[in-house]
Amino acid sequence: MLERQSMVEAALNAVLPASGHAPGGLHSAMRYAALGGGKRIRPLLAYAAAELVNADMSRVDAVACAVELVHAYSLVHDDMPCMDDDNLRRGKPTVHVAYDEATALLVGDSLQSLAFQVLSETVLCDDAAQQLRIVKMLAVASGSLGMAGGQAIDLDSVGKNLSLPELEFMHVHKTGALIRASVQIGAMCGERIDEADQDSLDRFAKLAGLGFQVIDDLLDAESSTATLGKTAGKDAIDNKPTYVSVLGIDRSRDLAQELCDNSMRALDRLPAGGARLRDIADFIFHRKF
Amino acid sequence: MLERQSMVEAALNAVLPASGHAPGGLHSAMRYAALGGGKRIRPLLAYAAAELVNADMSRVDAVACAVELVHAYSLVHDDMPCMDDDNLRRGKPTVHVAYDEATALLVGDSLQSLAFQVLSETVLCDDAAQQLRIVKMLAVASGSLGMAGGQAIDLDSVGKNLSLPELEFMHVHKTGALIRASVQIGAMCGERIDEADQDSLDRFAKLAGLGFQVIDDLLDAESSTATLGKTAGKDAIDNKPTYVSVLGIDRSRDLAQELCDNSMRALDRLPAGGARLRDIADFIFHRKF
Repeated sequence: MLERQSMVEAALNAVLPASGHAPGGLHSAMRYAALGGGKRIRPLLAYAAAELVNADMSRVDAVACAVELVHAYSLVHDDMPCMDDDNLRRGKPTVHVAYDEATALLVGDSLQSLAFQVLSETVLCDDAAQQLRIVKMLAVASGSLGMAGGQAIDLDSVGKNLSLPELEFMHVHKTGALIRASVQIGAMCGERIDEADQDSLDRFAKLAGLGFQVIDDLLDAESSTATLGKTAGKDAIDNKPTYVSVLGIDRSRDLAQELCDNSMRALDRLPAGGARLRDIADFIFHRKF
Repeated sequence: MLERQSMVEAALNAVLPASGHAPGGLHSAMRYAALGGGKRIRPLLAYAAAELVNADMSRVDAVACAVELVHAYSLVHDDMPCMDDDNLRRGKPTVHVAYDEATALLVGDSLQSLAFQVLSETVLCDDAAQQLRIVKMLAVASGSLGMAGGQAIDLDSVGKNLSLPELEFMHVHKTGALIRASVQIGAMCGERIDEADQDSLDRFAKLAGLGFQVIDDLLDAESSTATLGKTAGKDAIDNKPTYVSVLGIDRSRDLAQELCDNSMRALDRLPAGGARLRDIADFIFHRKF
């Protein structure tokens, strides 16, 4: 996994404009936001899904970059004062703290544009029409029917008591959509797979995406700011509904285990049991930060 | 032109999710930001360029929507308190005033995603690889090397004395990049044109884009808020360098005339003298709002 994390870091470094390129302040802030940190879960999932379909891995770097650029943009905007107002991310001051709010806004906007540039400027698959479907998939997963929509539901739910299905609906959008898209897009870069395999992959991505959020909520409640690299206990301070606030610690842990087991099971029918994806799920469910 | 403006309004109405679709608040705000106003210059340019290359006009709606969605997103973000802090746009309260800042942030983000969705989900030209080049062109024009980069230079220039070339550099990015891309993308939807015609079109778009900004600066200095539908005199209040502050009113007017003449001349060698584009340039250079 470390090797793949280095691959995406190198690929991001190559696609982000140099800090010396005008406007230098914006480019330096974009690099600050996207480089040198993060678990790179979404790129890892994209590489692993692409490997499963025997994709030309040199082409997959662009996919890995694109999903990570969208993720990075969302973090920059989510951390801004009008949203979650957070000052620490990946152990560093957030972009609006290290630079300023206007720069943070433009960094997010520009990282999103760059994601679509990267996804459209190199050949990802032999069929250009398939590549257009990939672009569409990332756009839908990022927008109001995906990640940004989930963020809107999240903001709207502050101070409210959500039911478990409502909480799930929020996270299916907020974190789930981009995680699912990372797997789906990765799997679209190689040989066509049959519908049953596609369904298995998608089921895995859905369960792993939800599990990612349950673990996130548990870590927020139980870990220290130093370990997380972002402000711990923030959800409770912000009065946000989480798996921990809705289910409590013990039942959240049970749910995480259940999601972990079921996501692994979804991989059983895939070639080599989806070994790489299994490793990433293992990391998602047992991570400490 | 009115007919084309109605076409883009109808097309935008069709691609924007309904206000009743969850998350309803976000979708209602997206519709508020993108519908019912605006000169629709960029879509008009895209339609006119597409007509020149005998494109299937039913396909061009998506291009018209995409460039307008990017423009609309940029207005929503530019109006936010951390940027230009404006409370009036197209005669209505800006999005962060009518809704709130967090919603405005997500509206802009989601409109950008929607632009790339629209551009990738229907067939724009017979060659899918050409359509990928279109997606890339919009991404580059929107991002840090185009519009968002221009906005960063703009923010950085507050209170500074810019030379004419520096002012031009800013506007070539801030407004010029998307206007140029609108023409170029429109012209990529039909029959291939030779390099000389392409150069003429591009020269037209560059000059008209710059002229658009000179007129904008003149209107900001000379018109009323009621006529403009946005706060008049804002540039001077914000201490922003403009063509008026750098050249004065009279020389700015001379420059606008010169850009108008040269942009029209660039169209001479095109089929039918680029009649539709000529009409739009006429509108750009003689508009009152």
